[in-house]
Amino acid sequence: MSTVQMIEYDVASDEIRSIYDDIMATRQTETVNNFWKVLASRPDLLKDTWNDVKSVMSAGELDPLTKEMVYVAVSAVNACDYCINSHTAAARSKGMSEGMLMELMAVVGMANRTNALANGLQIDVDNAFRNGGR
Amino acid sequence: MSTVQMIEYDVASDEIRSIYDDIMATRQTETVNNFWKVLASRPDLLKDTWNDVKSVMSAGELDPLTKEMVYVAVSAVNACDYCINSHTAAARSKGMSEGMLMELMAVVGMANRTNALANGLQIDVDNAFRNGGR
Amino acid sequence: MSTVQMIEYDVASDEIRSIYDDIMATRQTETVNNFWKVLASRPDLLKDTWNDVKSVMSAGELDPLTKEMVYVAVSAVNACDYCINSHTAAARSKGMSEGMLMELMAVVGMANRTNALANGLQIDVDNAFRNGGR
Amino acid sequence: MSTVQMIEYDVASDEIRSIYDDIMATRQTETVNNFWKVLASRPDLLKDTWNDVKSVMSAGELDPLTKEMVYVAVSAVNACDYCINSHTAAARSKGMSEGMLMELMAVVGMANRTNALANGLQIDVDNAFRNGGR
Amino acid sequence: MSTVQMIEYDVASDEIRSIYDDIMATRQTETVNNFWKVLASRPDLLKDTWNDVKSVMSAGELDPLTKEMVYVAVSAVNACDYCINSHTAAARSKGMSEGMLMELMAVVGMANRTNALANGLQIDVDNAFRNGGR
Amino acid sequence: MSTVQMIEYDVASDEIRSIYDDIMATRQTETVNNFWKVLASRPDLLKDTWNDVKSVMSAGELDPLTKEMVYVAVSAVNACDYCINSHTAAARSKGMSEGMLMELMAVVGMANRTNALANGLQIDVDNAFRNGGR
Repeated sequence: MSTVQMIEYDVASDEIRSIYDDIMATRQTETVNNFWKVLASRPDLLKDTWNDVKSVMSAGELDPLTKEMVYVAVSAVNACDYCINSHTAAARSKGMSEGMLMELMAVVGMANRTNALANGLQIDVDNAFRNGGR
Repeated sequence: MSTVQMIEYDVASDEIRSIYDDIMATRQTETVNNFWKVLASRPDLLKDTWNDVKSVMSAGELDPLTKEMVYVAVSAVNACDYCINSHTAAARSKGMSEGMLMELMAVVGMANRTNALANGLQIDVDNAFRNGGR
Repeated sequence: MSTVQMIEYDVASDEIRSIYDDIMATRQTETVNNFWKVLASRPDLLKDTWNDVKSVMSAGELDPLTKEMVYVAVSAVNACDYCINSHTAAARSKGMSEGMLMELMAVVGMANRTNALANGLQIDVDNAFRNGGR
Repeated sequence: MSTVQMIEYDVASDEIRSIYDDIMATRQTETVNNFWKVLASRPDLLKDTWNDVKSVMSAGELDPLTKEMVYVAVSAVNACDYCINSHTAAARSKGMSEGMLMELMAVVGMANRTNALANGLQIDVDNAFRNGGR
Repeated sequence: MSTVQMIEYDVASDEIRSIYDDIMATRQTETVNNFWKVLASRPDLLKDTWNDVKSVMSAGELDPLTKEMVYVAVSAVNACDYCINSHTAAARSKGMSEGMLMELMAVVGMANRTNALANGLQIDVDNAFRNGGR
Repeated sequence: MSTVQMIEYDVASDEIRSIYDDIMATRQTETVNNFWKVLASRPDLLKDTWNDVKSVMSAGELDPLTKEMVYVAVSAVNACDYCINSHTAAARSKGMSEGMLMELMAVVGMANRTNALANGLQIDVDNAFRNGGR
């Protein structure tokens, strides 16, 4: 159970409620998930994090599904059970198939493997790759 | 400099050369990058890792560019300078624009932030998200 | 459940008991927590770790509450559920308010975000910051 | 060198310049550091991250120096050279002595050690610590 | 519960069954553990990962028990509960005593501590240690 | 360069010198490496860490070479360049061959890969593996 108390809609302040309303409207759901109810202990953090997520995760040069899959990848490396489950669910709702999830995880596993090899053997960056090849 | 010696093409065994040849042919380059020249100290590991990378990173249900961007995301979290640079370069060569790279990093930064919040506050997974929403 | 058996007070050796006694006296509690009962499988590790914790976490140039909050921060990044819970509890017992905990987590989330950005984009350290500005 | 080009003040757009101006005014410096010049490739990310940092790192229930030290702690665990150097410098400019830095690092090292032990031995959270003792 | 469905032996394809058979024969067990039943959603990943594990973990210049202990060490740092438990069990079945497990964890804890110190204080590699002393 | 100044032997206090002497005698070298010269800024931390390292890394149920290799494994996952180089050098001086190093890294890479898969797919621990099979 979370280390701070969650703030439910019916006992929330007007400031918090208006963010909860925006979350539910944006996501077209009728409930606010635990992550936000925990952050609500500090309304500034709730507001700021929600605005950030809304802006970063919406369509841009990358589509929303790709972004959700990147989110799952990062969360897998960080062993964040909450985020793995919630963003796998979000990716599914945006069209990720079982095959896509398994292919994503194959890439994550491969990257984690070669990251350990390149760091562990202290391999020098090739000239051609310096500055990410720009 | 790497903690083991790199094996250059002209001193490599036939077994290693044939893998180097496949790497250059597949990637349409004329050089083998340091990563493989370091792994070549153990031909089994070279062969196995290359076959894995070739199979995992090729087109499937996810396109090769998306896979390269996921690779960059994982490498950023693991602080692997070699992999960040080489896969940013690879993603660029497959069409990643500056805008896409920055948008990718915005997602990675956001995920890393909320991972710390969800773990640090021990937030419970909502019922709706359990099992990744399947 | 832990991968090694915990050693309870009544079956512990005299060597272990004297450390358990010191833990309870120092912390003014009447129980020894699981962490120490697991380490007790190797009395040297128990003794050494406890002496270390006692010395490092006591008041010095930083006060004990600040140290507990730093502990929570590190544990959040490492996804250590045991340590997050136990040190959040310890920080609370030393005076951390709900507001302080949320503010701490806001900093941890922010740092985790910018760490990913700075590593992922391979940003060079400014001259003014080299050697941590000394 | 960073994987995207830095945007210097004299070639920056008005939107970016106004953020640069705010950074320099807030920090009472005459230069903008590399981190922001890299993020400027995506003005939204620059603006959003700066506003976040400014709000999170200012005085609240925790003082700015404590926040900088927490930042250094998180950055040490994430092996972020840029952030370690820049926030150690920031902490120094806010009054951190050599003794405080070493004491901070002693706590970080201790936490990293016991995190590995608690996770590696799968130690159960004591009832008294559940929910961070609330 | 896993985010993808496990594939049980009796509903598995012939391709998957032959890998399951090899796993059980190699490990001299009569069941296939969850890890493989999850990977089976993507037969290529199952096959490839299993062949890799079988080849890497068998006796070579390092004995199988040492390899299992290294596996536990890595898994502890990555907070992978599944891997910590399964490889601690595997190490035990290959002869790891309680004393060896505790000694292993003492090294892991120590390494995690000094890693944080060396990174956090940005200590330069001594000339004698460059390239891992080769 | 390190974020705190190193303390050289000839300007060190007697307390620090006696630890430096013990380090050189134990390791049969004529120099003290940077790690200790940085920790010396806080003599307590120097003394405590050295005593810990000396005790944990000496022969016990695991031999010193195995311990050094575990150290390299942990350091690779944590991206600690200092520790990777210094402990690879130490392992070499204790008899690690090139083949052993590559085999070690193959295990580390494999473990890092399956850790990401098991966490990322939220795989349940099999009953047979619970509590590490004890």
